[in-house]
Amino acid sequence: MKIKRIAGLSLLAPSVAVAAEKPNIVFFIVDDMGWVDSSVAYGEEVYPNNMRYNTPNMQRLASQGVMLTNAYACPVSTPTRTSLITGVNAAHSHITNWTSTMRDTPSDATGGAVAMMQSGANHDNTTRFIRPEWNINGMSPVEGVQSTLYATPLPQLLKEAGYYTIHVGKAHWASAGTPGASPYNMGFVVNITGNVAGMPRSYLSEENYGNTPEKWNYLAVQNMTEYYGTGIHLTEALTREALKTLDYPIQHNQPFYLYFAHYATHTPIQRDPRFVQKYLDAGMDEGQARYASMVEGVDKSLGDLLDYLERHNLEKNTIIIFMTDNGGNAENRAKGGVRFMHNLPLRNGKGSVYEGGIRVPLMVKWNGKVTPNTRVNTPVICEDLFPTILSMAGIKSCEVVQEVDGQSLVNLITKGSKLAAKAQKRGEITDQKSANAFVVSENVSGIDPQRTLVFHYPHQWKPYDLEDIDYLSAVRKGEWKLVYRMRTGKIELYNLSSDIGETNNVALQYPDKVKELSAELSSRLREWKSPMPSVRETGKRVLLPDEL
Amino acid sequence: MKIKRIAGLSLLAPSVAVAAEKPNIVFFIVDDMGWVDSSVAYGEEVYPNNMRYNTPNMQRLASQGVMLTNAYACPVSTPTRTSLITGVNAAHSHITNWTSTMRDTPSDATGGAVAMMQSGANHDNTTRFIRPEWNINGMSPVEGVQSTLYATPLPQLLKEAGYYTIHVGKAHWASAGTPGASPYNMGFVVNITGNVAGMPRSYLSEENYGNTPEKWNYLAVQNMTEYYGTGIHLTEALTREALKTLDYPIQHNQPFYLYFAHYATHTPIQRDPRFVQKYLDAGMDEGQARYASMVEGVDKSLGDLLDYLERHNLEKNTIIIFMTDNGGNAENRAKGGVRFMHNLPLRNGKGSVYEGGIRVPLMVKWNGKVTPNTRVNTPVICEDLFPTILSMAGIKSCEVVQEVDGQSLVNLITKGSKLAAKAQKRGEITDQKSANAFVVSENVSGIDPQRTLVFHYPHQWKPYDLEDIDYLSAVRKGEWKLVYRMRTGKIELYNLSSDIGETNNVALQYPDKVKELSAELSSRLREWKSPMPSVRETGKRVLLPDEL
Repeated sequence: MKIKRIAGLSLLAPSVAVAAEKPNIVFFIVDDMGWVDSSVAYGEEVYPNNMRYNTPNMQRLASQGVMLTNAYACPVSTPTRTSLITGVNAAHSHITNWTSTMRDTPSDATGGAVAMMQSGANHDNTTRFIRPEWNINGMSPVEGVQSTLYATPLPQLLKEAGYYTIHVGKAHWASAGTPGASPYNMGFVVNITGNVAGMPRSYLSEENYGNTPEKWNYLAVQNMTEYYGTGIHLTEALTREALKTLDYPIQHNQPFYLYFAHYATHTPIQRDPRFVQKYLDAGMDEGQARYASMVEGVDKSLGDLLDYLERHNLEKNTIIIFMTDNGGNAENRAKGGVRFMHNLPLRNGKGSVYEGGIRVPLMVKWNGKVTPNTRVNTPVICEDLFPTILSMAGIKSCEVVQEVDGQSLVNLITKGSKLAAKAQKRGEITDQKSANAFVVSENVSGIDPQRTLVFHYPHQWKPYDLEDIDYLSAVRKGEWKLVYRMRTGKIELYNLSSDIGETNNVALQYPDKVKELSAELSSRLREWKSPMPSVRETGKRVLLPDEL
Repeated sequence: MKIKRIAGLSLLAPSVAVAAEKPNIVFFIVDDMGWVDSSVAYGEEVYPNNMRYNTPNMQRLASQGVMLTNAYACPVSTPTRTSLITGVNAAHSHITNWTSTMRDTPSDATGGAVAMMQSGANHDNTTRFIRPEWNINGMSPVEGVQSTLYATPLPQLLKEAGYYTIHVGKAHWASAGTPGASPYNMGFVVNITGNVAGMPRSYLSEENYGNTPEKWNYLAVQNMTEYYGTGIHLTEALTREALKTLDYPIQHNQPFYLYFAHYATHTPIQRDPRFVQKYLDAGMDEGQARYASMVEGVDKSLGDLLDYLERHNLEKNTIIIFMTDNGGNAENRAKGGVRFMHNLPLRNGKGSVYEGGIRVPLMVKWNGKVTPNTRVNTPVICEDLFPTILSMAGIKSCEVVQEVDGQSLVNLITKGSKLAAKAQKRGEITDQKSANAFVVSENVSGIDPQRTLVFHYPHQWKPYDLEDIDYLSAVRKGEWKLVYRMRTGKIELYNLSSDIGETNNVALQYPDKVKELSAELSSRLREWKSPMPSVRETGKRVLLPDEL
């Protein structure tokens, strides 16, 4: 597949010929659900955290598809979502943080006396940095919109290729008053609820999903009046809406792209009454049980979707991509349990470039192409999905206005899963550990298992300092991971193959590796003119790792 | 076309064959815009009120299509809209009043001391009646929903016949928490903003169309975040959205049904800044100028649509139906001018069964079928549009669960307009008056010019008495109109051909006509078990006219 960069974009394409043999594609994306937050175990072993959750439909999907055990997203929502829809790395798109509902309003937190007191956190650095210039309004499919990345969105290309493109749930690519606020401007022909909101005001129909005069803000879920007061949880309501939208393309024998983006399991952490009791009975605290019930709600939604596709004989010609938008939120006290321990064995969680914040579930079911029940361990990153989906859709070439960073994963998951299955047959793969260790070579996949993946969060996340979250950058390359702390200028190095928890900083032991990865990270950030904070005292931008 | 009534309805139809030669259909419906509220003059002459407005695009449409000079809707919004989508007369559907946003909440007004003081109106009858049982939750495409009419909606039938069905703007068929709240349950495949709201909280992007924490209720216009703070008026924003939705069916060469239902010109009466100044300059008061600017905003929207269709070479294969949902609001003080005089020469306005409340603009453009620039004077009513549109769509037969009252107008507007043009050529039609007097016989049109049309409003509209609005029923038959006042039991008779203003009650002069029409109205209400109020003192239902 050839992606050509062009100067400008025509939103209304000429008539297209619909190829009925194209596969349908469902992108099922969950919010804030971490790598260990399901009974599907992506790691070398089943971790204790995996055992807390009951997600039979995610397991069902795992048995039907390939699991990418080293899949990455950005630390927070918008950057992942804009990378998915544009193919551009967040450090390159300059959308490095979540977008506010309101235009021209940076979401960067700043410290304050109240926040300091409330958090009890270390806050001496709170105001030390001036926030970086970044694309605070997100992405735009229209040129010239202030503080946005101008890009050709994936659904637009799919629509032009004959796809019936459906958006359900959370969009969160841009701020109000800009074109990116509306999925209709992204090339979707149907939109259910998607707008500038990054979370729902409420999951409860009893609260009209946040639409009551006394309880309202931009995050109130829009256009779901049908379900008000019905007792139907938002996750269920969105599922019903999603399945309804498939009616038209199925009747007209048109290939569809369903981007099904659940708000769950983002805050507010509210009980899903259908599932909560068993988790309480199992001894979880209220917060843990609420969260687990939200996860199971999403699992049920996935199951309903799989059932629907089977009922309509579409399961063979429908690709399912399952992913989450960042790591599990380990900072929010409403989730119960012990803060920052939710993603163990991974370190920290949402917001962080440590594995807990960026390593995410990713599975692909693709009948006849992907060998079921297999694992592929090549590190992949969210922007890879852009060319991957174009390729899945049979698009041989297309024109976009942005510079795409992602690489197609099609060969990796098709040929890679086949090789993995063969290795299993040969007895080379006997368990989860050996499956996760099986390497797919670049010759086969077109993806270098040693390529450098960049993560960049030059922001303060909350109105109090979070040392393992704020102002961090990282690269992963093969088994190595380097973390750069802008506040202190310190560099850490971890070997993920032996230390997935990033507990053992080996920077002193491997100075050459530190130098190599520091240089790679710096040159990437330099080349991309990535946003960097400035030091308040001097007004100078924070140094890149190779400038230290 | 054959409409067969069946016991139940399958919402998911089998695959359909799309006939590309089907015409596209645009139903352009304006809210609360009265019969004289445009520079298009539907009457025998250009009335002074017509001269207040500047609507060149409505004139453009008039020159391209047929005008139905005796077209009727219901006195308020929901009954008209549910009649349009089901083909059932309001007195028969039992949806005789507008639906509240909230479920199980009758919108019937009741009097109160404050309201009485505020209005200064006669209120001695305010609490004399107990409100009737009616379908307070509107219509439902799903069986068994409390206080609804179960019916097969028009868009569902169009979708099954291969149409790409688009809803833009105001829906208002049902209350929150019921399936009818969502256009997606009505057979629309795309919905822009439509829900339970009968009016917008605000037309202004500066007020986020009513979506601000300090100014919010169910009427806040949903899912338009893209336009917040952009200075784009809601009428304009909806137009842009509507045109965007046409992208997909045009690309895929699919016939579309666009139901484009403007919120304008419903209250709140707010300036459209693009057009208001010239009306102020012309000497209008603030309210009048605001309203006229809202009308012209809608006219501009119609023009943009016509331009778009021409630009895409679709003007020949696209039928345009232009209509409004009830008479102009003459009661609201925000409209300026003199209360209840806004619809002159017609009596009263919105809410009333007098002509000012129910006689509405109706024009149809249909290239090659309807002879342009013609007039047809056969009385027609909103439920006629249901079979009309099915017939336009080439649907030869279909199955519905409701008993349809409307009759197809296709022969009337095609053959009728042709005959009118011929009469004009022969010199029989020389001016507006003679054009309005030209009669199309039932033999030609299939519509008896003498058929009986029923209007029924067994409600109190406002929290103060409005004698020419509350608790009235009426029939029109040929040139005659009978009005029944439930509060007083009085019957009035008017001859519309000589007294369009209903100022001269001739009941005493024509006792036989009164008897005939009273009997017809009574038998229809009896047969349909139409909602009737009860007398609070006795608990007995109000008498029908023939029971007096």
